[in-house]
Amino acid sequence: MDTKTLCDGILDGQRRALSKAITLVESARADHRVQAAALLEALKAAQASPREALRIGLSGTPGVGKSTFIESFGMALVREGLKVAVLAVDPSSARSGGSILGDKTRMELLSREAGAFIRPSPSQTELGGVARRTREAVALCEAAGFDVVLIETVGVGQSETVVSEMSDLFVLLLAPAGGDELQGVKRGIMEMADLILVNKADGDLKAAANRTRADYAAALRLLRKRPQDPDGFPKALAISALQEDGLAQAWAEMGTLADWRRAQGHWARTRANQNRHWFMEELRLALLAQLTQAGPVRDAVARLGDSVASGTTTPALAVQSALALLHP
Amino acid sequence: MDTKTLCDGILDGQRRALSKAITLVESARADHRVQAAALLEALKAAQASPREALRIGLSGTPGVGKSTFIESFGMALVREGLKVAVLAVDPSSARSGGSILGDKTRMELLSREAGAFIRPSPSQTELGGVARRTREAVALCEAAGFDVVLIETVGVGQSETVVSEMSDLFVLLLAPAGGDELQGVKRGIMEMADLILVNKADGDLKAAANRTRADYAAALRLLRKRPQDPDGFPKALAISALQEDGLAQAWAEMGTLADWRRAQGHWARTRANQNRHWFMEELRLALLAQLTQAGPVRDAVARLGDSVASGTTTPALAVQSALALLHP
Repeated sequence: MDTKTLCDGILDGQRRALSKAITLVESARADHRVQAAALLEALKAAQASPREALRIGLSGTPGVGKSTFIESFGMALVREGLKVAVLAVDPSSARSGGSILGDKTRMELLSREAGAFIRPSPSQTELGGVARRTREAVALCEAAGFDVVLIETVGVGQSETVVSEMSDLFVLLLAPAGGDELQGVKRGIMEMADLILVNKADGDLKAAANRTRADYAAALRLLRKRPQDPDGFPKALAISALQEDGLAQAWAEMGTLADWRRAQGHWARTRANQNRHWFMEELRLALLAQLTQAGPVRDAVARLGDSVASGTTTPALAVQSALALLHP
Repeated sequence: MDTKTLCDGILDGQRRALSKAITLVESARADHRVQAAALLEALKAAQASPREALRIGLSGTPGVGKSTFIESFGMALVREGLKVAVLAVDPSSARSGGSILGDKTRMELLSREAGAFIRPSPSQTELGGVARRTREAVALCEAAGFDVVLIETVGVGQSETVVSEMSDLFVLLLAPAGGDELQGVKRGIMEMADLILVNKADGDLKAAANRTRADYAAALRLLRKRPQDPDGFPKALAISALQEDGLAQAWAEMGTLADWRRAQGHWARTRANQNRHWFMEELRLALLAQLTQAGPVRDAVARLGDSVASGTTTPALAVQSALALLHP
């Protein structure tokens, strides 16, 4: 499909065009990058006032019931007539090999909904690349008219920071536990959470979930007060994704938070800062990519590397030679 | 001092020239970088067969007695007629503010020796910059005729990897402890150790130190067999830096290991790979530095960042405009 056809198809909400466009932005090929940039620009140009989804970042360590939550929460939104897209940032997916096939089967109901769109994790281990692809996929989903984009990540490494840098709200999913343990969640992740959901508030675990919720609510109030939080936020709620309990309240709280931030100007400011951040990140990646992309620069740099390795020249001088090659 | 004077002074072993040269390589100023590259190249050109020191990377969490070890071990080498330089890689030193004044006072005897040279940590928080400066300082110390360069790092973050990438041997200093705890030392650091020294094998802790030594020796044999390790290595020794016990044996083991690696070709191969690695690292830093160094490029990139932030253009297209600026 050419850029024009893709652009029209996406704006028309066609899933096939959206899928193809996401595949395009996921490609690292230089010509694909040029086409992807043109497509994103065309989508922007075609919208007088650009469509905006609520971008919800979602994190939680394995075992907290993230898939069940996405399935139940996504279905609840779809039943309200909202269009929901689910994307994943998981730099380890290529290694584990699991989620590529797994994403659709673990959200069986949602994946069959016409109003839902589930995209498996891009199969690449490098976080920088995954981040750009996911961010551009979010932009495509917004242009395709999705109301909510859920960006999921596993609770390891730096991917939470990456996800929070592309989200309007960051939701942390926890399991019932003793209040004195952080369930393997890093403190920094706790600090970026806008809403904490303690899942599994059902059956035997209900009392524990409510206790955990109260513990976190108290701790959050003590720990933080950020300018982007209205009174009473960050909140902690107990929910049951399995029994679909508390999902409506969670959605209402997200709406309250989003409305307040829009009214206070935080929303626009955050998105502006995020855009600037991603531009600089991409520029850094693009500069470094020159060194590894096949071509005369890479070959010359490899030869300079050989002379440095053999001791013929010093790294410092070789760097100056390489820079001269890059900026003749 | 001009490059020629600095070069002659360093090759003549003059401390003042060495100090000035290290200050030069520590500078981020563009003209200083050019002069530093010229100096390093001149030093290389002036030596028919370049002087090589034994570069010993040294890591250990605070409290294991690293300063006492460097003092005792350094003094032992000086007494054998060897010239010893001590450098530090500590990306946090600028924040803690401690080590800049502290380095010489905590090694009081060694700092007064004519055959020893102690250089405080460069006062910069960015690990990439600290790494380049330290690596170039090592090269300067080698040209100045030092026999041993000790490169010290605190046992946190990624600085151990950086130090091991510029060392011939990596020594891990540990305190006596139960065999089932890793003393806050990350597994990756354990895996890069060529020699483990359990310090404080004196007084009340002697028995515990010997037990810890035996535990680590057993664990190391089970865990690893690397091509660069001869039979019996990696070794674990119990020492007392305070009572100067076991230091001669530690030095002898380092010699055995270094000789074997030289004979087997590992030494030359490792240094070649390290040189190539540092060249690529420096090149990456130099490319990214274009974005933050004052000048027309930075200003134009900042303007592009503004249009991205305001939503006038997409990150993807702005990146292409910025790349066009950088490569007209």
